[in-house]
Amino acid sequence: MVQIPEIYSYWRSSASWRVRIALAYKGVDYEYRAVHLVRDGGEQHSDAYRAKNPMELVPTLEIDGHTLSESLSILRYLEDTRPTPRLVPEDPYLAARAWQIAEYVNAGIQPLQNLRVMLELGASFDASKAQQRAWSRDWIARGFAAVEQMIAEVGGRCAVGDDPTVADVCLVPQVYNARRFEVDLGPFPNITRIDAHLAALPAFQAARPENQPDAVAPS
Amino acid sequence: MVQIPEIYSYWRSSASWRVRIALAYKGVDYEYRAVHLVRDGGEQHSDAYRAKNPMELVPTLEIDGHTLSESLSILRYLEDTRPTPRLVPEDPYLAARAWQIAEYVNAGIQPLQNLRVMLELGASFDASKAQQRAWSRDWIARGFAAVEQMIAEVGGRCAVGDDPTVADVCLVPQVYNARRFEVDLGPFPNITRIDAHLAALPAFQAARPENQPDAVAPS
Repeated sequence: MVQIPEIYSYWRSSASWRVRIALAYKGVDYEYRAVHLVRDGGEQHSDAYRAKNPMELVPTLEIDGHTLSESLSILRYLEDTRPTPRLVPEDPYLAARAWQIAEYVNAGIQPLQNLRVMLELGASFDASKAQQRAWSRDWIARGFAAVEQMIAEVGGRCAVGDDPTVADVCLVPQVYNARRFEVDLGPFPNITRIDAHLAALPAFQAARPENQPDAVAPS
Repeated sequence: MVQIPEIYSYWRSSASWRVRIALAYKGVDYEYRAVHLVRDGGEQHSDAYRAKNPMELVPTLEIDGHTLSESLSILRYLEDTRPTPRLVPEDPYLAARAWQIAEYVNAGIQPLQNLRVMLELGASFDASKAQQRAWSRDWIARGFAAVEQMIAEVGGRCAVGDDPTVADVCLVPQVYNARRFEVDLGPFPNITRIDAHLAALPAFQAARPENQPDAVAPS
């Protein structure tokens, strides 16, 4: 009997969201296992979860008898094992451009504005909540200036050409975070145009935070 | 006439170093173009360089008529276009494990300890040089605890099995930074053992910072 894949996810985690998009886009059914990043000091720090994911981060994907983590590595595994429909262009140059945007969001923007860094700024430098938000807002705005230019070079209806790629998979959660941190998106018309296009696609809809079982309504 | 690839690099940049390892390992000849990250406020911010690399980061690789950036995206392009010798295992699961370590270093450790973040901590929170170093040291140590466990699961003479992969390509520069920031490497015997093994390999030797044309001798 083949086991259905299981994703350990938090509704608002960018990295979990990326994997949810790819699973939905490729039509892979899965079970959802919620990991609450805040409750009880963070369920990702529990011994049971750490055994699956030594980084104590979400997501983890159990699939094909393997336990996988790191969202971009998971995207690559899904592309290797479930190649249709593609999320990486066939042409090596366009593939490099799609991964360039994905990597830039993943390593150049997201790590600098995530929850654990904001908490550490508070702990190490007494940064107020407002200062933490300003820090995150500033890194997102700097990063988007570069992404906007990359899309101007290779974008179409999506970030690279007209079909969704790993670039879009990473871009959408980052735009959501930009809005949460009240980044002025006026200077980024390509990013907002593509985000609006993607928002209408069923796989991207299904993966949104508010559509997850552990979502919390805004208070 | 085929043009020889050109790398825009800074001797001590981790991301440049990764690409230098891959080029050397795959036997790709290239011209070295130094970009000084500190002189004149940082040559990466010049108009000429920004036209090649809107992120204003090194490296940039000009190859096959293309201008590529983001080191992991470049590693993937080199693997697609120069597959021998491999730096990504053929088996999709082992490939995922190699990229997992590479991505974790690239997104979970390096961005939090690099120069631009340390400068921003000084600018935003008046962090002293000692505090900036402590910040970097702490993120590296936390990250290495996870990497050490990943290597325990899948490592051999190298981080994944016995042959070099993209995991090793990313690990070596991170160990160098750990030493610069005086991280206690005692708790990480797998990492230090593999680093010592890799240091003896010619491609890894050739790519070291001190062997680059723009290297500066320790003062």
